[in-house]
Amino acid sequence: MNYRMMSRFISLILLVEVIFMLPALALALWDHNMVVALAFLEGMGATLLVSVILHAFSRKARKGFFAKEGLVCVAISWIVMSLLGCLPFFLSGEIPNYVDALFEIVSGFTTTGASILPEVESHSRAVLYWRSFSHWLGGMGVLVFLLAIAPSGGAAGGFTMHLLRAESPGPNVGKLVPRMRETAKILYIMYILLTVVDIFFLLLGNMPLFDAICTAFGTAGTGGFGIKNDSIASYSPYIQNVCTVFMLLFGVNFSCYYLLLMRQVRNVFKDEELRLYFCIVAGSILLITLNLRGFYGTVEETVRHAAFQVSSIITTTGYATADFDLWPSFSKAILLGLMVVGACAGSTGGGLKCGRVLLLMKSLRRNIGRVLNPQKVQVIRNNNQAVDEKILDNTNAYLAAYVIIVLFSFIAISIDGFSTTTNFSAVLSCFNNIGPGLEAVGPTCNFGGYSIFSKLILIIDMLAGRLEIFPILILASRSTWKHR
Amino acid sequence: MNYRMMSRFISLILLVEVIFMLPALALALWDHNMVVALAFLEGMGATLLVSVILHAFSRKARKGFFAKEGLVCVAISWIVMSLLGCLPFFLSGEIPNYVDALFEIVSGFTTTGASILPEVESHSRAVLYWRSFSHWLGGMGVLVFLLAIAPSGGAAGGFTMHLLRAESPGPNVGKLVPRMRETAKILYIMYILLTVVDIFFLLLGNMPLFDAICTAFGTAGTGGFGIKNDSIASYSPYIQNVCTVFMLLFGVNFSCYYLLLMRQVRNVFKDEELRLYFCIVAGSILLITLNLRGFYGTVEETVRHAAFQVSSIITTTGYATADFDLWPSFSKAILLGLMVVGACAGSTGGGLKCGRVLLLMKSLRRNIGRVLNPQKVQVIRNNNQAVDEKILDNTNAYLAAYVIIVLFSFIAISIDGFSTTTNFSAVLSCFNNIGPGLEAVGPTCNFGGYSIFSKLILIIDMLAGRLEIFPILILASRSTWKHR
Repeated sequence: MNYRMMSRFISLILLVEVIFMLPALALALWDHNMVVALAFLEGMGATLLVSVILHAFSRKARKGFFAKEGLVCVAISWIVMSLLGCLPFFLSGEIPNYVDALFEIVSGFTTTGASILPEVESHSRAVLYWRSFSHWLGGMGVLVFLLAIAPSGGAAGGFTMHLLRAESPGPNVGKLVPRMRETAKILYIMYILLTVVDIFFLLLGNMPLFDAICTAFGTAGTGGFGIKNDSIASYSPYIQNVCTVFMLLFGVNFSCYYLLLMRQVRNVFKDEELRLYFCIVAGSILLITLNLRGFYGTVEETVRHAAFQVSSIITTTGYATADFDLWPSFSKAILLGLMVVGACAGSTGGGLKCGRVLLLMKSLRRNIGRVLNPQKVQVIRNNNQAVDEKILDNTNAYLAAYVIIVLFSFIAISIDGFSTTTNFSAVLSCFNNIGPGLEAVGPTCNFGGYSIFSKLILIIDMLAGRLEIFPILILASRSTWKHR
Repeated sequence: MNYRMMSRFISLILLVEVIFMLPALALALWDHNMVVALAFLEGMGATLLVSVILHAFSRKARKGFFAKEGLVCVAISWIVMSLLGCLPFFLSGEIPNYVDALFEIVSGFTTTGASILPEVESHSRAVLYWRSFSHWLGGMGVLVFLLAIAPSGGAAGGFTMHLLRAESPGPNVGKLVPRMRETAKILYIMYILLTVVDIFFLLLGNMPLFDAICTAFGTAGTGGFGIKNDSIASYSPYIQNVCTVFMLLFGVNFSCYYLLLMRQVRNVFKDEELRLYFCIVAGSILLITLNLRGFYGTVEETVRHAAFQVSSIITTTGYATADFDLWPSFSKAILLGLMVVGACAGSTGGGLKCGRVLLLMKSLRRNIGRVLNPQKVQVIRNNNQAVDEKILDNTNAYLAAYVIIVLFSFIAISIDGFSTTTNFSAVLSCFNNIGPGLEAVGPTCNFGGYSIFSKLILIIDMLAGRLEIFPILILASRSTWKHR
């Protein structure tokens, strides 16, 4: 293990985190909230201290990383970043329990949006800002950010494909351009642009600037932390519709936007994953609208709520305009199904990902085909390109890990005595980085009732879901730490 | 497609079915129940008629079967056998709706044990006998039976490995002896012997003969149809414990018994799947017993109920001595987990099977290992034998199909408006051939409330679960029926 190199990266990441805490500190000072300002100062001090210590340790690091070290490094970075990032919540006394504060920031960075807070409107703007910003940073990934801003040949120059692959969602990371650093830069530029456009459209609907920024952060990262107790429900229909559209846009593979910029419109429309994604969205909205007949006053309202909730769940954002826990079983079942499917690979959304669902179905079809024609060699194609068998193998392993982790977590948190639906939807919701579940963790409720043990399980689920399981599994694997 | 050969097999299977209806007819006559006797006569007549017609069509069939035809043949056999086998229920008027009657017999043949009957004690003994016997026949498989009794070189001599493989549960069918026919014969002899021993022990506990036979049929096939409204709850603790032990025994891979007969005791104890199976059973009983503290009067009662329900669910039998729907969430979550895991491969039990769980975990570990040591070639071993990559590939495809089918069925039957837990547990219960679920389909309830549409979905789930998905998928695949 190249511990020194790992220290250097984690040190840099913590430095980035400190810098990103600055706006929150400024906001606290602007609001004359000295308790919160002090909490942020202390949090930044502690983070900086750890960063400096790690940097001192990392001197004379030899360059180069193996895949294993990349994955372990990503997992540790996220954990350390969360352990320190939750300090302002805890030190300000706004979340008096440290595990609760940790749950909240992990839920933020992993873009889950599950909260332990019974209500948010009484909290300070600085804390709400940091909560929402954690979504934005976690959405595209802090390591990707580091890579994007790294000077070529500099300290972060040792970044490899492994790191980016570990943090980026989806079965296969497409390089947009040959150089990884350029790819990261382009990704972040598109990400920032899209966020700014989102804020612009929200402001057009007379949303206050602070609300617009926080809402856009939550939308961009497909996170879901709101700054109102009823999430997006009390905003105007226009604002709700803007959110619906942007949630869907942030659930699209970012390489599609790059292709659009390169004027390769036809390739975008031919993208199989994108088609599947929009087919599922359209089909779900249609079915739920039909199922909700008579539930709301007008057809417009029904379609609006159906579209909002479907977009929120499939992109794993987790905003809500309606308490879907009160909807009929069929609508709830569709939403549970969408929780598992998730958004597109290469987007900021979580879940199994449409691309993986596509690969699993194609691989299943091949297995049937093999029985019918045992002699024929069948290659699985995606967008007319042959898919590497290793990716298929990995996708299958991913599903196995997914099922095993969901099952174990579900049994483990059941010990708290909540209902089966509550527990099952809580695990699905955290693991797929969505936010709300059903019943006791439904859109109008929160995760505060769970025990510390269950919260820790759910924290691990959120991290495993965001980092796509393998970094966490490898971190926990004994053979990773064996000396040879 | 070798339609003529397929007709011959289905014709033979129906003939077997007619012969197996004879004891039920005799029982109806003995009880002087002429309505039921007539219903069985008519059912047998109709079945015989179809058998004769198919036989006439099958003349001059060329021998030989491809894998595809074997799978299609198995799927069709089971469907035709069910469509005709439910006639006595329907014609006697004891189940006045044909779809309900079909649900009941499919539930029987697939050894699910899910019932649409609100109570069973008012039904005639002949109908109850046929219901229970369907478990016994479906447990080891009617094609395996046909193979076992077929004269060498006779009409059924064209049977191939493909047929047996399609009907036998588990990721890989181990031949006990080089010749398939001998394997089938040995399997059935052990099956009959174990059933007789079960009946003997039940009779020792002063169980009436009819009850003992029906209960043993349900235990042997890991089915779960009872002949009392409260399943096994009103029988003595001794009888309950006998059932616990025999349910567990019928969940063991039958090749272990063959090894025992061959005095290879050490190989049996070394069997990894068997170890996993008993570890899961022991662990679950322990955890549930601890969780149920204070729920029952004595420790003996708690352990007895815990052991009975765990054995009943993991072997996918579905008998009950307690209403586990009233148990605490943790116990219910464990039972839901056991529903997914299921019994051993090569037993009469359903579910994913312990052997598959083992393969999935090993394959996952290999994927982690590949990240750690990309160069190293890693072979997965089971009981120290290398596992064919094709079997691994199939196991992964199986899991994918499993998840997809469960998800779709869950969404489809949700349209009836039952609770999420009811629908989810109903699908898991039918697909894994267990019987009872939770809430509205809990151990004291039944599936009668579902609509015809949902019942048909659940019927397909039961068949897909019993035949391990692929025969049904291939039957439904368009390319199977394409002429080339």
